[in-house]
Amino acid sequence: MRIAVDAMGGDHAPRAIVEGIMLAQASYPDIEFQLYGKESEIRKYITSETNITIIHTDEKIESDDEPVRAIRRKKTASMVLAAKAVKEGQADAIFSAGNTGALLAAGLFIIGRIKNVERPGLMTTMPVMGQPDAGFDFIDMGANADNKPEHLLQYGILASYYAKNVRGIKQPRVALLNNGSEASKGSDLTKKTYELLSSDPNLNFIGNIEARELLTGAADVVVTDGFTGNAVLKATEGTALSLMSVLKKSILGAGWKGKLGALLLKDSLKQMKQELDYSSHGGAVLFGLKAPVIKTHGSTGPEAVKHTITQIKTMLDSQVIADLVTHFENEVEVEIKNK
Amino acid sequence: MRIAVDAMGGDHAPRAIVEGIMLAQASYPDIEFQLYGKESEIRKYITSETNITIIHTDEKIESDDEPVRAIRRKKTASMVLAAKAVKEGQADAIFSAGNTGALLAAGLFIIGRIKNVERPGLMTTMPVMGQPDAGFDFIDMGANADNKPEHLLQYGILASYYAKNVRGIKQPRVALLNNGSEASKGSDLTKKTYELLSSDPNLNFIGNIEARELLTGAADVVVTDGFTGNAVLKATEGTALSLMSVLKKSILGAGWKGKLGALLLKDSLKQMKQELDYSSHGGAVLFGLKAPVIKTHGSTGPEAVKHTITQIKTMLDSQVIADLVTHFENEVEVEIKNK
Repeated sequence: MRIAVDAMGGDHAPRAIVEGIMLAQASYPDIEFQLYGKESEIRKYITSETNITIIHTDEKIESDDEPVRAIRRKKTASMVLAAKAVKEGQADAIFSAGNTGALLAAGLFIIGRIKNVERPGLMTTMPVMGQPDAGFDFIDMGANADNKPEHLLQYGILASYYAKNVRGIKQPRVALLNNGSEASKGSDLTKKTYELLSSDPNLNFIGNIEARELLTGAADVVVTDGFTGNAVLKATEGTALSLMSVLKKSILGAGWKGKLGALLLKDSLKQMKQELDYSSHGGAVLFGLKAPVIKTHGSTGPEAVKHTITQIKTMLDSQVIADLVTHFENEVEVEIKNK
Repeated sequence: MRIAVDAMGGDHAPRAIVEGIMLAQASYPDIEFQLYGKESEIRKYITSETNITIIHTDEKIESDDEPVRAIRRKKTASMVLAAKAVKEGQADAIFSAGNTGALLAAGLFIIGRIKNVERPGLMTTMPVMGQPDAGFDFIDMGANADNKPEHLLQYGILASYYAKNVRGIKQPRVALLNNGSEASKGSDLTKKTYELLSSDPNLNFIGNIEARELLTGAADVVVTDGFTGNAVLKATEGTALSLMSVLKKSILGAGWKGKLGALLLKDSLKQMKQELDYSSHGGAVLFGLKAPVIKTHGSTGPEAVKHTITQIKTMLDSQVIADLVTHFENEVEVEIKNK
């Protein structure tokens, strides 16, 4: 198993990335890591060279580079070289904490889509409050700005395979994010998507879910268009951050009572923060491509990098992408036969 | 000033509604309140009859009634009679804590749109974290499932007038909810809306805002389509409720430390909760109609009812709807002249 790592992507690169790879290396002696980036910088954080290959390049994609242009012009950027290694069969998956748009473009244009998958979606496993080990797969979180019903059906299939193969859920409950729980509710897009999801015999479709219920664990897979997914994800993050900051400010302003109270509630406050941290499930998958393409937050630290390597290993071990390739090939054969 | 009140709408009706009206009556001796509903029930909570008229009816719309059908068939329901009073000029505004869809239908079909307003939107003043007196007007929170760019432009105009006339903000900063801050970002809908908003000389359009920044006070008015607005609002509420519940559970499970800590941080925890309570700004306005049509949460208590009456009084005093009628009449004259 060979993972191509963009060692230069992210706010704390290459340090956080390489330190995370060192953690993963200790746990997974069977993985070969290919680190793309500035060799002299990367070497600073290498503590063991077992199964580590460094592919030196001076070029990298910046966080504010225009994605498609960056991928086309910076032909020797660490991310581009890592993607090419996957395309050419020298690596089985790619991981980056760099420019999201550029990684999406690299995935689409260099690695390429699974046959018959129309629009790969960005998927992440989000937390369920009060159940630290649970989660739900949320797709599309923003790879696309405009989606059609057919794309959303495919998201349901993609994420179902992920929940089953990677997260070990036998019959993943698939829900559609909508503006009401009744079947008749929705926009033109969600009404048509509802029909498609409910008539696919391969899916365990449980109906609509409202954004209010997302974090309660009412579904294992939640399907939405990329625009709504992006807005909902950011609203969730923004609300949590705002609340934490209000609480912190208020505690700091409450004198000795605040200090003592915060000390006594340290574990509870920590737990509240941890419940929201879904990095233990790994990073976001650009899903629907021929290989695992995984993105983590720019601020990712070594522990989260290690979780992401675990996720990639599980994706590769579980053959989720091979199963999807078969699924989408058969789907179309069935469609052709039925015509 | 005469306000038609659906005394039977909401989980705690008529008690919470009538008690709230009693609070408002004490503060606003110039308002005439018309209470529609079951007289014997309403009378239980009336402490002073000054400026109170009760219009008895046995019929009411239930929270699970199908909205449009309910409005058409339950011709003597308290909400329907209250809306008719506005239509016929016997009242200046309507307030209900009942079935949202039914109130939207009553507003549209009984009271009617301002001329040239295509799709009234549901607007609420949401909180800005850390600034208890600040807020931003968010429109459309879900009156529509599918919107066109032209509707969103009208939302910008409607909410700007509201922020100016009702909330006293001289040049309201109008932002478009989008999936990135750059002008080039967005779906087909938001890209076209961006063009319309930025070329309207009457608006102080400041560009895109992401859902993550909503509660930070970066804009006075935030425009979005009803599907996204609904999802973002529910995600915000759901996240806040989930976090509170995780914290509460963790504190309860922390023994004496939890009890003492919670006692010491009582004010800070209360403040966190209050920051999210935007009922001090009043209820949600179905905006774009010929009269104020105001909806509050079904769980509304007397204090929130009073805040809503204050909001309605300010809307009527400020002539915001008369100004909007003039604006939309002139807009179209200008368009016709330019052709």
